[in-house]
Amino acid sequence: MNDKKIIENNLYNWCIKLFPICRSITGLGTKKTLSFFEKINPKLTRIKFKSGQKVFDWVVPYEWNINNAYIQHSSKKKFCEFKNNNLHVVNYSEPVNSNITKENLLKKIYTYKKNKKAIPYVTSYYKKDWGFCMSENTKKKLPNGKYKVVIDSSFKKGTLDISHALIKGMQKKEIFFSSYVCHPSMANNELSGPVVLNGLLKYIENNYPKTNFSYRFALVPETIGSIAYLSRFFRTMKKNTLFGFNLSCLGDSKAYSIIRNLNQNCLSFKILNTVLRYKKNLKIYDFSERGSDERQYCSPNVNLPICGFSRSKFGEYPEYHTSLDNLNLISNKSLKESLQVLALIVDFVELSMFPKLQTFCEPNLSKRNMYPTLSSYNTKSADLKLRKDLLAYCDGNRSIFEVIDILTKNKKIDLYKIYDELKFLIQKKLIK
Amino acid sequence: MNDKKIIENNLYNWCIKLFPICRSITGLGTKKTLSFFEKINPKLTRIKFKSGQKVFDWVVPYEWNINNAYIQHSSKKKFCEFKNNNLHVVNYSEPVNSNITKENLLKKIYTYKKNKKAIPYVTSYYKKDWGFCMSENTKKKLPNGKYKVVIDSSFKKGTLDISHALIKGMQKKEIFFSSYVCHPSMANNELSGPVVLNGLLKYIENNYPKTNFSYRFALVPETIGSIAYLSRFFRTMKKNTLFGFNLSCLGDSKAYSIIRNLNQNCLSFKILNTVLRYKKNLKIYDFSERGSDERQYCSPNVNLPICGFSRSKFGEYPEYHTSLDNLNLISNKSLKESLQVLALIVDFVELSMFPKLQTFCEPNLSKRNMYPTLSSYNTKSADLKLRKDLLAYCDGNRSIFEVIDILTKNKKIDLYKIYDELKFLIQKKLIK
Amino acid sequence: MNDKKIIENNLYNWCIKLFPICRSITGLGTKKTLSFFEKINPKLTRIKFKSGQKVFDWVVPYEWNINNAYIQHSSKKKFCEFKNNNLHVVNYSEPVNSNITKENLLKKIYTYKKNKKAIPYVTSYYKKDWGFCMSENTKKKLPNGKYKVVIDSSFKKGTLDISHALIKGMQKKEIFFSSYVCHPSMANNELSGPVVLNGLLKYIENNYPKTNFSYRFALVPETIGSIAYLSRFFRTMKKNTLFGFNLSCLGDSKAYSIIRNLNQNCLSFKILNTVLRYKKNLKIYDFSERGSDERQYCSPNVNLPICGFSRSKFGEYPEYHTSLDNLNLISNKSLKESLQVLALIVDFVELSMFPKLQTFCEPNLSKRNMYPTLSSYNTKSADLKLRKDLLAYCDGNRSIFEVIDILTKNKKIDLYKIYDELKFLIQKKLIK
Repeated sequence: MNDKKIIENNLYNWCIKLFPICRSITGLGTKKTLSFFEKINPKLTRIKFKSGQKVFDWVVPYEWNINNAYIQHSSKKKFCEFKNNNLHVVNYSEPVNSNITKENLLKKIYTYKKNKKAIPYVTSYYKKDWGFCMSENTKKKLPNGKYKVVIDSSFKKGTLDISHALIKGMQKKEIFFSSYVCHPSMANNELSGPVVLNGLLKYIENNYPKTNFSYRFALVPETIGSIAYLSRFFRTMKKNTLFGFNLSCLGDSKAYSIIRNLNQNCLSFKILNTVLRYKKNLKIYDFSERGSDERQYCSPNVNLPICGFSRSKFGEYPEYHTSLDNLNLISNKSLKESLQVLALIVDFVELSMFPKLQTFCEPNLSKRNMYPTLSSYNTKSADLKLRKDLLAYCDGNRSIFEVIDILTKNKKIDLYKIYDELKFLIQKKLIK
Repeated sequence: MNDKKIIENNLYNWCIKLFPICRSITGLGTKKTLSFFEKINPKLTRIKFKSGQKVFDWVVPYEWNINNAYIQHSSKKKFCEFKNNNLHVVNYSEPVNSNITKENLLKKIYTYKKNKKAIPYVTSYYKKDWGFCMSENTKKKLPNGKYKVVIDSSFKKGTLDISHALIKGMQKKEIFFSSYVCHPSMANNELSGPVVLNGLLKYIENNYPKTNFSYRFALVPETIGSIAYLSRFFRTMKKNTLFGFNLSCLGDSKAYSIIRNLNQNCLSFKILNTVLRYKKNLKIYDFSERGSDERQYCSPNVNLPICGFSRSKFGEYPEYHTSLDNLNLISNKSLKESLQVLALIVDFVELSMFPKLQTFCEPNLSKRNMYPTLSSYNTKSADLKLRKDLLAYCDGNRSIFEVIDILTKNKKIDLYKIYDELKFLIQKKLIK
Repeated sequence: MNDKKIIENNLYNWCIKLFPICRSITGLGTKKTLSFFEKINPKLTRIKFKSGQKVFDWVVPYEWNINNAYIQHSSKKKFCEFKNNNLHVVNYSEPVNSNITKENLLKKIYTYKKNKKAIPYVTSYYKKDWGFCMSENTKKKLPNGKYKVVIDSSFKKGTLDISHALIKGMQKKEIFFSSYVCHPSMANNELSGPVVLNGLLKYIENNYPKTNFSYRFALVPETIGSIAYLSRFFRTMKKNTLFGFNLSCLGDSKAYSIIRNLNQNCLSFKILNTVLRYKKNLKIYDFSERGSDERQYCSPNVNLPICGFSRSKFGEYPEYHTSLDNLNLISNKSLKESLQVLALIVDFVELSMFPKLQTFCEPNLSKRNMYPTLSSYNTKSADLKLRKDLLAYCDGNRSIFEVIDILTKNKKIDLYKIYDELKFLIQKKLIK
């Protein structure tokens, strides 16, 4: 691209800092995480929903916090120490402090059979319960005898917190990005989504002092958070959302994935498919494979034009929802690649979402020195072809992404090259 | 299915009773057949069109009746005795009683070359003529000599009779079923269609004291009957018909067939295709393969959303339109299977034609004890998936059959299981 | 076809007469060519655009004329004599008369590397320049020494000329045919297009004293001519054009080609595809392969329902834009075949563009003696099937070409047979 854009390079560092925090759908860990992002992007503001508040068919739960947890054998040996790994405790466990037989303890322990070294990630948000998670290997070696179980957690009337930002553009039409901040110490699912979202917010703030379109960003606890968010902003979002993406699992390098919604003509899918077309290992999933907040954004009575964007999709990589989804699974390179996909979409949207030729019939390129003056058999370079095709396809009705689709149907063209040529034609006032 | 529905079991017995009757487009045989069905389904009422009455481009013909017919050789040996098989006489033959040379007789005899044992079915409704049908084998053995031909038939000013029923539901929108009652002693084509139609009418009467949709049933002589019926009810049917089927050849077991009309998006086709998708040997025919009353219901200026439903389609099985299309060709099992296809369609239509989720965003299943409370890696059973998918796809715009199409696009799901789950979700007030 | 239509047989002779003329986008050669066609078709009238006149983004250039041109070696030997072949001079060359070194001469000479015997066709309309074209073989043999170059050409304020005709039918809806008259001595590209266009105009004049639809014909210099034409007639054409074709390269026998526009449902494409379906070597090109005046007619803000019709498409045959594109490349047989394709389209359009059945339900064919009166197993001839299908598919909404598409989807039917049967049904007042 000719114009040098500033792109965030600290994505992985943010992950390092955020990884140890024990997040959940409510509580201090989540609030701390949101504060961290609010410092990076001061545009983000906090929204709070009180425990007990009704949000559509749901009720905001009590705020959950946890200080410590462990299992202690009568020999004093400790297992499942929360301080070593917050996945050891079933998320949203009620407090417990009691002695227990090994037999009864085993009923409260969850392991992951497919990988005996991994601690699984388990939650119990909507029924009071408690439990511990450990590797199958450790479980097998638990000594016989008496145990003590301690979970120093608490429930209180508090708040469910969301951070969001709305960059108001010249147009009310919005582009929406959402990710979730309720997962404890796992990296790809889900620090990568919030981190890329914040990288994109910074990208727009740094490179577009005044945007043409509006951009909405939401960092929510999954499910209950997106439901709460919709309960407040649904009307506006329904009226204004042009397209948008739910961001999840954007830190690994094995694939690019799109989770479609049921609307076969959805602009979100078309756009993402257009810019990802050349990626190796592009995977397109049906809405039947949904799993993240696209479940809410695309539910029948909400039906926003949102689709899911992932690298290896949640549920499709072996480390998913276990302690193996750690900082080794993701890289700054992959996070940045994911960010660049979204940044390129924003760049095209801001350049011209519905580009339109400004002349009747073809423009006279010769008089503008934009065409070889001597028509002969060797004037068919790829560059000239790209120029002529943009002038032939930009009719003001097709989105730039549809134009790119036509351009690249039968041959590969670098998308940055298309960006540069379109920008040039706009500067020449041939396209607007 | 959880709720036990009553399904008619006498379909084959009805065929046995009706088989010997000599039906035609008018006359006592057809009236007797209609009376038989009117006893089974008192909802059926008679409509009469007088001979000479104009119906669109056609005129109702004189009523034809026949007492007896045969060919007699000078040796007194008789051939083509009407009393043995009513197919022996060309249907609608004018009366004749005369001596004839063998040479001239042969010109009035029709056989079926493809199967030399079969008596073909031949008609001459719209030109006064007479003739006899016999097997090719018999024809070859006709002795030389003089013959007498006797056809004791008559034409009179009378009526063309139709039986029809309209079950008025809460909604005026109608679902239409039609079959025809003009064929003499043949079983699959066509006692199976009228018999399954009457089985369905009984099914609805027995199981739905008050229906949501309206249901229209017509038993007509083919072509002239459906034209006459349309001449009276076209306006209402055009306004109200949601979808419908022309029923023909529903008694054998070799295939399931759909005859499409030219409207590629026709609801009738979509519905039938959805419920027949898993049947072995499902055959889908173009409208160019039409042949029964879909010719009238789907003709250009009528254009009702009707398609044809058959097992082995007319013209596609070797016994078609011959004496071999007899009671051995059909079975109660097959007739009942055909009825069950239509009954299942009615069941879904009555349960919810356009099911709609009743919450914004996903409903909270946990609080209703409809979801495993402990979210972990093993909560993805097929049953739970079906529940979540129904809640995700029922938007009030898609018909239940479109929802089923999406559900079953990539995997086989028992349709009765879908019915039960949808019913459960309706009972739980999550879908309406 | 039953009705004998008069079809022009002099197409190749016209080419012979027109071949030697040196045409360009303006000038006497083009005017002479237009006069030639205006004599054949007096309906054609001249439109003139003055040099300097603005037409959309373009300006009509000065009128260019040329008397003579050559290169002369100091030995007096001449090369690139205009009188031998007008392709020797770069079209629109400014006048020159000067001595020149061989080194500098070579910079002004164009050859065609792919075929060393061919003189290429080169133009320089929009930048003042001059040059010569010769075969690579001749160029290699140019003797050393001094040269004189003479181009006796001139620019003057004059006109850009177009011939057009509008046959006014009962309906304002127009069918449009365009071809171009700016190419010097080349045969397929482009005498074949104008010649076939004039053959078609004569065909309509000879066979249809009063047409139902209106027909517009334009003979223009390529690009600037079609732009000028649109600058005058765009509003009318936008309102009235039903479909149309840009005609180019219609004289060879190796293929039939369609150049699509970007509208996937364009009637022009559908019609041409319908009538060419059975042709061997039918090639369908994307709009990205455009190159002739479809570039203007289908440009974003013009967007007329036009597509390109060629035999071997421009750029796709080795002789293209060289002296090898001569009278040997084309034949009267091929020109006439191309004309017949267009004539058949006109015939169907004039017979019934949107044929509609005139009865409710099927018509009674028996009473009109249009159907075998004895319904039996042998009444399914292909002819009867065609009759019944036309009656079943002509609903007044489908164009006759869509009807043909349905008829011929699965089986080959002679299009003239369909024409005859449709005409018969119209005569019988069953279709209108």
